[in-house]
Amino acid sequence: MAKIDYAIVDNILLNVLLEDIGSGDVTTSALIPEKHVSNAVIIAKGDFILAGLPFAERIFKLTDRNIKFRAVKKDGSRIKAKTIIAKISGNTGNLLMAERTALNFLQRLSGIATLTDKYVQSVKGLKVKITDTRKTAPGLRFFDKYAVRTGGGSNHRYGLFDGVLIKDNHIAALGGVGKAVKLARAKVHHLFNIEVEVKNIPEVKEALSSGANVIMLDNMNIDMMKRAVSIIRQKNSDVLIEASGNVTFENVRSIGETGVDLISIGALTHSAPAADVSMKISSGK
Amino acid sequence: MAKIDYAIVDNILLNVLLEDIGSGDVTTSALIPEKHVSNAVIIAKGDFILAGLPFAERIFKLTDRNIKFRAVKKDGSRIKAKTIIAKISGNTGNLLMAERTALNFLQRLSGIATLTDKYVQSVKGLKVKITDTRKTAPGLRFFDKYAVRTGGGSNHRYGLFDGVLIKDNHIAALGGVGKAVKLARAKVHHLFNIEVEVKNIPEVKEALSSGANVIMLDNMNIDMMKRAVSIIRQKNSDVLIEASGNVTFENVRSIGETGVDLISIGALTHSAPAADVSMKISSGK
Amino acid sequence: MAKIDYAIVDNILLNVLLEDIGSGDVTTSALIPEKHVSNAVIIAKGDFILAGLPFAERIFKLTDRNIKFRAVKKDGSRIKAKTIIAKISGNTGNLLMAERTALNFLQRLSGIATLTDKYVQSVKGLKVKITDTRKTAPGLRFFDKYAVRTGGGSNHRYGLFDGVLIKDNHIAALGGVGKAVKLARAKVHHLFNIEVEVKNIPEVKEALSSGANVIMLDNMNIDMMKRAVSIIRQKNSDVLIEASGNVTFENVRSIGETGVDLISIGALTHSAPAADVSMKISSGK
Amino acid sequence: MAKIDYAIVDNILLNVLLEDIGSGDVTTSALIPEKHVSNAVIIAKGDFILAGLPFAERIFKLTDRNIKFRAVKKDGSRIKAKTIIAKISGNTGNLLMAERTALNFLQRLSGIATLTDKYVQSVKGLKVKITDTRKTAPGLRFFDKYAVRTGGGSNHRYGLFDGVLIKDNHIAALGGVGKAVKLARAKVHHLFNIEVEVKNIPEVKEALSSGANVIMLDNMNIDMMKRAVSIIRQKNSDVLIEASGNVTFENVRSIGETGVDLISIGALTHSAPAADVSMKISSGK
Amino acid sequence: MAKIDYAIVDNILLNVLLEDIGSGDVTTSALIPEKHVSNAVIIAKGDFILAGLPFAERIFKLTDRNIKFRAVKKDGSRIKAKTIIAKISGNTGNLLMAERTALNFLQRLSGIATLTDKYVQSVKGLKVKITDTRKTAPGLRFFDKYAVRTGGGSNHRYGLFDGVLIKDNHIAALGGVGKAVKLARAKVHHLFNIEVEVKNIPEVKEALSSGANVIMLDNMNIDMMKRAVSIIRQKNSDVLIEASGNVTFENVRSIGETGVDLISIGALTHSAPAADVSMKISSGK
Amino acid sequence: MAKIDYAIVDNILLNVLLEDIGSGDVTTSALIPEKHVSNAVIIAKGDFILAGLPFAERIFKLTDRNIKFRAVKKDGSRIKAKTIIAKISGNTGNLLMAERTALNFLQRLSGIATLTDKYVQSVKGLKVKITDTRKTAPGLRFFDKYAVRTGGGSNHRYGLFDGVLIKDNHIAALGGVGKAVKLARAKVHHLFNIEVEVKNIPEVKEALSSGANVIMLDNMNIDMMKRAVSIIRQKNSDVLIEASGNVTFENVRSIGETGVDLISIGALTHSAPAADVSMKISSGK
Repeated sequence: MAKIDYAIVDNILLNVLLEDIGSGDVTTSALIPEKHVSNAVIIAKGDFILAGLPFAERIFKLTDRNIKFRAVKKDGSRIKAKTIIAKISGNTGNLLMAERTALNFLQRLSGIATLTDKYVQSVKGLKVKITDTRKTAPGLRFFDKYAVRTGGGSNHRYGLFDGVLIKDNHIAALGGVGKAVKLARAKVHHLFNIEVEVKNIPEVKEALSSGANVIMLDNMNIDMMKRAVSIIRQKNSDVLIEASGNVTFENVRSIGETGVDLISIGALTHSAPAADVSMKISSGK
Repeated sequence: MAKIDYAIVDNILLNVLLEDIGSGDVTTSALIPEKHVSNAVIIAKGDFILAGLPFAERIFKLTDRNIKFRAVKKDGSRIKAKTIIAKISGNTGNLLMAERTALNFLQRLSGIATLTDKYVQSVKGLKVKITDTRKTAPGLRFFDKYAVRTGGGSNHRYGLFDGVLIKDNHIAALGGVGKAVKLARAKVHHLFNIEVEVKNIPEVKEALSSGANVIMLDNMNIDMMKRAVSIIRQKNSDVLIEASGNVTFENVRSIGETGVDLISIGALTHSAPAADVSMKISSGK
Repeated sequence: MAKIDYAIVDNILLNVLLEDIGSGDVTTSALIPEKHVSNAVIIAKGDFILAGLPFAERIFKLTDRNIKFRAVKKDGSRIKAKTIIAKISGNTGNLLMAERTALNFLQRLSGIATLTDKYVQSVKGLKVKITDTRKTAPGLRFFDKYAVRTGGGSNHRYGLFDGVLIKDNHIAALGGVGKAVKLARAKVHHLFNIEVEVKNIPEVKEALSSGANVIMLDNMNIDMMKRAVSIIRQKNSDVLIEASGNVTFENVRSIGETGVDLISIGALTHSAPAADVSMKISSGK
Repeated sequence: MAKIDYAIVDNILLNVLLEDIGSGDVTTSALIPEKHVSNAVIIAKGDFILAGLPFAERIFKLTDRNIKFRAVKKDGSRIKAKTIIAKISGNTGNLLMAERTALNFLQRLSGIATLTDKYVQSVKGLKVKITDTRKTAPGLRFFDKYAVRTGGGSNHRYGLFDGVLIKDNHIAALGGVGKAVKLARAKVHHLFNIEVEVKNIPEVKEALSSGANVIMLDNMNIDMMKRAVSIIRQKNSDVLIEASGNVTFENVRSIGETGVDLISIGALTHSAPAADVSMKISSGK
Repeated sequence: MAKIDYAIVDNILLNVLLEDIGSGDVTTSALIPEKHVSNAVIIAKGDFILAGLPFAERIFKLTDRNIKFRAVKKDGSRIKAKTIIAKISGNTGNLLMAERTALNFLQRLSGIATLTDKYVQSVKGLKVKITDTRKTAPGLRFFDKYAVRTGGGSNHRYGLFDGVLIKDNHIAALGGVGKAVKLARAKVHHLFNIEVEVKNIPEVKEALSSGANVIMLDNMNIDMMKRAVSIIRQKNSDVLIEASGNVTFENVRSIGETGVDLISIGALTHSAPAADVSMKISSGK
Repeated sequence: MAKIDYAIVDNILLNVLLEDIGSGDVTTSALIPEKHVSNAVIIAKGDFILAGLPFAERIFKLTDRNIKFRAVKKDGSRIKAKTIIAKISGNTGNLLMAERTALNFLQRLSGIATLTDKYVQSVKGLKVKITDTRKTAPGLRFFDKYAVRTGGGSNHRYGLFDGVLIKDNHIAALGGVGKAVKLARAKVHHLFNIEVEVKNIPEVKEALSSGANVIMLDNMNIDMMKRAVSIIRQKNSDVLIEASGNVTFENVRSIGETGVDLISIGALTHSAPAADVSMKISSGK
């Protein structure tokens, strides 16, 4: 990680530490002698794909640069319950101050990676990509998108600034798919492709003839998707096709089999259950 | 809300808006005429307990103070799919820039309120309280804890600074429940109670005789919990009892029936599935 | 302007005001009675294309929200020396505190717009676009790029995050134009085009066959440019061509006549002489 | 440089890096292997006075503290085209992320130093000082004023807070040079001199008799300047004289020969053409 | 100190350094050669209890990490006039830039510790604690409360967030001591005690019967205090008693002898005279 | 006050409010109904010179912009105990949240103004000015210096950046008063005077002959001061004389009578006892 990444990430991590610590950890400062040191482990209490360990390490280091943190496992690994993920040692009070914040990152990001992995496994053998959306936890997009990649998924655009995606509300305000695509092409800089959301076959055709580079099939059933893919492929083999909306474990493989290039899933980042992970102090003095 | 609350909250909301908007919304600025205005609605696409509407409103106002936002429903209401939650009107480009950020808050907070409500309903009729933990999304504790209250739950301490809770790792570092409780009492200021986590009956007794004000039964089975409650109640009717660990919809009522005062559940804030909610532009010019 | 824009821009403008004002305007607070009010004008002292007036207005408003600011001219207008650009009235001390900061923006941005306009006029009648680069004044990219648009130019990518541009140093590190283009296509998200910098005809051909969407001809002479354009156009009419490097008033039209789509010019933002503009207090009491 | 300087400067440099990098360098992260390292040079592509190298170094270090940066030339040196200015080595991706930001500082500051030097050379042999003004690029005053010193110029006051300068607009609001000077003397703290701007001979006399310490001759022609200098010198040999307004290479020496002490020139910082400087990766693996 | 403490404290210390240094130390940069180094001492010019030395050290380090700082005395020590407190060496310019800021902390915090110590000595042999209040210098609560502890006092709650204290204005707004105590108990989380301010015997009784955990006797005379203590002790030996208001050196021991548990004194942090301490450069080159 | 002042001041005031409020006022939010409104007064409990009322008002407004604040007295007024200073009305919860922060400013600033006034009265009839120093509470210099002016004192330089003051440590490092004065004159910009600290008659003479504009007599007894003043006045009637060090109510008039121009007193800002002031809720519903 370049230090400029640290500059971005550290700022967030410090704010999150302060959110928890505020004017001080009253329990720990009352109980733990100032120079007490301990060994501790971060340990899995369930099965998951690990994600976020470098951020957990960074949180311990930001709390106390003298804490030793040794990663036993790497992000992206399949972890079984009771596996030791990392070994940590250092000032006990500082370990305890950092514990919850570090675990909150690990449990969230590993949860996202684990859910992403399940979807990726569901379309194994197909050439379709599973991508995230902008439906991330407020303030945590950098981390949530990292976790999606760690789980084997692909990232869609990061925000409103690094990709053109014409959605239903743009079209509603503007009055037509084709008009919108052409206007976008004329206005945005030359390094952007134009993606447009369509909800039926006439819109698919309009998108195609207006020169859209990527067509998002929104909330279509499998049959309509198949027709859409067929129409698009016949006309222009370069156009990318994205499926979006109501994707579940039940239907994700069928969607992939229609021949779309990308399946985007909001749940990856907004509804992933947390992984179960904890810290245990194993010895101290 | 006092402006000082705004000062805290606005700062977070602005950062989250900037996370999404960065150097600008390239799609919207290309497509939507600068003075175009629209009417829009925020609409439920599933059933949930609403939470976060004042923050959604604030996000629209921070984006453009001239946007009109009319709440149709209130936080805490039970919302059915297809219900209109709010009506919004104003500059179309600004509505579109704020849309995702506002929805990301609504979907998360309503998800938390909805999950909390399910647990609260599960113990209906008992006098036990359902409380949250510090297992919140990093940076969002203020909002996550608000959503728990909105769903009918109670808040545990906010962070490390506003409550004394002696946990397993403190005890491991220090060597004994009783010693820890007495030390905490001697050291922390006089406005704090002392809560201690115990994992078996001998620790329950040690906690009780050392003068703990609150005893947390961690990961005990129902039988052990019953014994613990009985021992505590016989000795001191003022001591509060909290149950914690592996709480599910299946066992939450049984736990409540043991007579504990509080059941704390990390899943409320770390594993609540998002509520399904969207914004639709209904008309514009 | 949406308030979120204000949030971005205001933060910069306030810092710039504080850079000048520091612990206070010692001259003005000594001399000007606290309630003294004045009328003032912003007036051109040379010919230029106006740019930055909304930011100047905002600077006055940030200094004192009660200052009245009436724009007489609009950004993008051709201004002749001695023209009144805006009329301002309000607290004299506050007008004087804001004066230099407001003028520093106006003189810089109008200078950039004026230089851009000269290049745009030089290629009048051709369909080529004049674009800026990332060679902006540190911290002022938002404003510098606005001024380029105001002068009739087009913006290239904003930063490293919203466009893929493979430059000589990437190729040097990686070992070949074609390899770089293919790798970029495989790795970056689907909403990006791929632009690559080439410096000779073999690289042009390699870029073309590797599927680059945009080819930047770097520092080529007119003859080589013509050959490059001809080779590209024969092979793929969709590929965009950008000319870059050593563009001057003398050669810009010849470059445009080679048939390139874009000419990028660093000087627009790094070497534009400032426009001459000042504020005069016309009356006060 | 003391660390407190770093605290001020680093904050600006980091913001400028983030302005360019935003959510990430999409090209570099796609193309350059994570552990790839390179040697690179910063090289002049034109002749100039070097300024800003310590800031360029700091930018590389802020991006990645492990980058090695060896300055071959020092700020203030006369650089010929094709001269190597610095040798850099380290992680290739991080070198590329920092490149443009570092060069943007170098090209601007060396441009200012070069223009300053030209004016300083123009008055060689005279005892007059060339000084800057507050007409700096917004947010870059610290750096612009450093570049002026590096080019052999002197700094005027930094901002509104560290020097008393009564300008035309103060006088207009107040009604008279003499009144203004006396009022300022009575009000500002005892460590300040009083400078006043005058535009004709009667004002010169008024300034002189009211006890001004420094008299600025604004936009006077050479003849009037000579008379002003003569009047001032006869009356009070301690008063300093500053010439200001419409200074060019053509008239700067004549102005200096009138006997003024200081010539202030806004163009030093608002209209200096950028120096031509680039980074080349020479080898890597 | 954990680094997270540094993050909180450093941010304040840097702002305070910048408050003094602003755009630069004009005297020092004019006079002291850039590489000049010196030895210096921090020396007492009066008698006091030392407090704040770690912050003074940190200020020197933040200014220049290469400054050597050797503490000769420790916080909490009784210092006699002319005692050397610390020896410092390093870059002379940086020593001088940090001097005043470091001394301003030392003089304030040692002043607070010294005043606290005087009150603590006044109640020697009694078991009553001397505590501070929230009447600290704005922005310096962290430091002021540290100084109170260093002087042998105890801290009351840190702010409004970490303790429940029902004051006269709450009772006025709500209409009764008992009602307020019961409402607070029902509403605040289970880790808080409830303290209530009372001003006469009927309120003492109401507080006691409503279940208050701590009763603050506000501005009572010694006789009323004695009665209050006696009533409370008879009824409930667990209730803590705090005396508050108009505490002086004359009456503090009498107050302590009434049997109260805590005496809170605003003057500790709002009216402590500064300790007299200075820095002397002993040698340099 | 211009909004730019607000920008500086508000930022500090908000931080101070947050220092007290943190994650929320637990007492007030438990007790006071959300829409409860009250009338309140700010009332003197001792005699003092009022200072800081505009900041107190601003604190209430920042907490809740709908709070009505009516100043009954003005800064600079002599206030008698029991006088009502301001009347406030609005949301009770918000009044209570702002109360302590507002009072902490009022008690500190009025304390400083009151102490300043006592010194100013002590030299009544003499033409000497009482000035402050840089010995202010860390972070509060803006406010402390305001309070000194409000009490009738004059401000010395604000910080290291807006005045040249050569102190003993500069001279120690440099080796001589005269050398230091001349070097400073040559190096600092032309708008600064040069002040130098001297401790005996030979240094007075050296300062005088080296051209110092202001001479600070440090820690001299009355006799030496008289001689110093006489020597300086004979030689140069323009040189200002400042007395500094160990100024008390007992000796301040004698010092003034020596004929010095300025007497600087650190105690004004580092040892002023707080004024006694409180807020009372008079009625509410």
